[in-house]
Order: sequence, then C-alpha cells, then structure tokens
Amino acid sequence: MKKRLKHTHPGRLITFEGPEGAGKSTQLKLLAGYLEEKGFEVIATREPGGTPLAERLRAVIKAFEGEEKLHNTTELLLIEAARSQHVREVIRPALAAGKIVLCDRYFDSTTAYQGGARGFDAEAIDALNDLAIAECAPDLTLLFDLTPEAGFARTRTRTETQGEHDRFEEEKLEFHRQVRESYLTIAAREPERVRVVAADRPAQEIQTEVRKLVDELIR
Amino acid sequence: MKKRLKHTHPGRLITFEGPEGAGKSTQLKLLAGYLEEKGFEVIATREPGGTPLAERLRAVIKAFEGEEKLHNTTELLLIEAARSQHVREVIRPALAAGKIVLCDRYFDSTTAYQGGARGFDAEAIDALNDLAIAECAPDLTLLFDLTPEAGFARTRTRTETQGEHDRFEEEKLEFHRQVRESYLTIAAREPERVRVVAADRPAQEIQTEVRKLVDELIR
Repeated sequence: MKKRLKHTHPGRLITFEGPEGAGKSTQLKLLAGYLEEKGFEVIATREPGGTPLAERLRAVIKAFEGEEKLHNTTELLLIEAARSQHVREVIRPALAAGKIVLCDRYFDSTTAYQGGARGFDAEAIDALNDLAIAECAPDLTLLFDLTPEAGFARTRTRTETQGEHDRFEEEKLEFHRQVRESYLTIAAREPERVRVVAADRPAQEIQTEVRKLVDELIR
Repeated sequence: MKKRLKHTHPGRLITFEGPEGAGKSTQLKLLAGYLEEKGFEVIATREPGGTPLAERLRAVIKAFEGEEKLHNTTELLLIEAARSQHVREVIRPALAAGKIVLCDRYFDSTTAYQGGARGFDAEAIDALNDLAIAECAPDLTLLFDLTPEAGFARTRTRTETQGEHDRFEEEKLEFHRQVRESYLTIAAREPERVRVVAADRPAQEIQTEVRKLVDELIR
C-alpha cells in the first residue's frame, strides 16, 4: 500500500472505526462534548452519509427496497460516491475552516468490510478511497477493538435471539473475524495514525483513553 | 490502455455512442425492429439506467434537486455504480441467454465525457470501467459522429434559442470538441470494435450502414 500524504488544512479529522456494538457513536458524542467545552468548533458526522445526497445513497446501501439485488460492486461504488460527496461538501470545507471533524466510519471501514471480508482487491479499494477522499486522510483514527464473540454477546442481549440460526451466526462470526483481522492489519501498518482502543470496557474508561489520545493530537 | 478481453457469452452486446443530437436512440429503435424481425431476442437498454436502482441513480446524476452541488468525482462514481448494477442485473444475464443487447451509451461515454472533457485520469477511468463491466465488453460499438457545430445546429432548431448566451455556447462547443476528439481517439485505438458512422445524414441512410455493420457481426 502506498503511503497517503497528510492534509495541509488547519483543522483536524478524527475517524471512529470498529464493528457494530463497539460503542463508536457513544464515544464520538462524549468526545464532541469534551472538545466543544474546550472551545473547539466540532463537526460530528458519519459515513455513509453526512450530506442530503450521501444520506440518500446510504438509504439505498442499507435497505434497497426492490426486486433487484444490490450487487457487491455496486455497493462499493455507492459507498465511494457517498464518501466523495461527503468529503467535498462537509469534511474538506470544515478542515479548511479549522474545525475538528469527528467521523463515524471512514475509508478504513471500506478496506476492512469490502476488502478484508468481501474480498475485493486491496489495491482497487485503495485507489477508490484515494479518488473519494481528495487528500483528506484522517489525522487520527480510533479503532474500537472488540472480538466478534463479544460483539455478538452485546447484540444478543439487545435483540433477544430465538435460536435456530446457529449456522447463520457462525457465518456472521467468520465475516466479522475477517473484518477484525483487516482492521488490526491496518493498525499495524499505520501505528501513528491508527490507535487501537480496547472496547470491552465501561464507556467512561474508554472515553478517558480517547481523550488522552485526542489531547496529544490537538495539543 | 490495456486490451480488454472479449466476453465468452453466446449473446452479443452492441453499444451506441456519440453526442446528444446524433440520432443514437432513433438508430437503436430501428435496429431493434430489424433484429427482432430476423428472429433474434433483443434487449434495448440505456445508461445511466436500465434497472430500477440504476434509474434512481440516473435521476440523481441528471438533476439532483438540493442545495448541494453534485461534484464531478461523485458523478463519476455514481455512473459506475449504475453501470455495475446494470451489467450484473440486465446485460450479463441477457448475454448468457444468447440475446442481443443494444445499449444507448456505455463505458466509452465515461471515457469521452468524464475522461476526455472533464479531465479525469484515463487510467483511473479504465480501472473503474473494468470494475463495473465484469468483463462484458461490447462486441461492436457504433460511434455516431457529428461535429459539435452540427449538433448545436440541430439542438437549436429544436429549442429556439434566444441569443445572449454566446459565451456559454462557446464553452459548450469546446467541451463537445473534447468529447468528440476523445471518441475518435477510442475509435482509432480499437478499430475492430468501434465503427465510426457519419451522423449528418438522413436517418434511413445511416440505418442502412448500421445494419450492414451489425450483419457482419451476427452472421
């Protein structure tokens, strides 16, 4: 993988990565409040989405209501289209204006889910990511790490499963194992940008670590 | 540009390229009738579009109603997402079933408009096109060639211009000159696949040449 250049805007981009159930959204909200209290202008946003058009694409990606199947390649290209719009309409202008942008998922999600777990060629994904982000690479990425088993346990207490879908769950476990492996590979490759935060802890304990990492960045 | 492999399906894919006003749609309809009379199963389709999802994306590409601008990179990725879906839902199954697919615009439009005229990197466009088409390259591409001046003259008789937008028209002329140049470059590079058809002639005369070229392909 070729190295991405750092952006030259006065603002800072912090991205939140990890599986569902790792507490990304909670951590993002807590951090936004902390930074605003410190006097920073903060933009909290998410992917796919973040603009009216990108949110329309998110709706297509998340639940396309129709007779046709959403093919994996189409999904990948829609995610990158939404990202392209989000970066140019929201992230880049905010960074240029000196704001701190907190983004729930960004291009590492595409590398981990579409690349690592769905098997798209890593170089093709890198090229698409580069096309979409317009040189707005994150200054810091917080990877909330959780084993798939722990993630499932959390989801299970939420939704109350009814048994009889063990095979389905095993497939899902394997998928999420690949996602996790891919995330940890990214972190190992870019240790300065990507910080791994153990997510199987109380939210306040995690937030303390998050604030420490962010304080180092904005100091 | 690396050479695309031919697809191995029993059907045939014929694409229609050229500027607005060159008569592509008329020629496509006439050819569809001709081939159906000969007993072929014909699918007439278009890009961007061709499936419910891809038509939804077409609507976004053609006229996004909102406060945000549709950025060029987003447009490019949406066109490729629509193409990905169209190929996998319509074109590839039809080719596998031995049908003749007639498609109004395909990847050469992206090369000519987004690459040639908007200046996107040609290799990046080739890579996106390859990702989207899943090896379904056209067996024959009919390039309906028209000078921008002739195209404008046709459009002008249609819409009755009111003067005072000469500078705008000059910009449009320059854009369409680049599109045409890019199309002709593609044709020069792939003379076996791409046949240039002079479009400043009566429709029936053009159709006679079109049928001759198509007869050679399906013989």
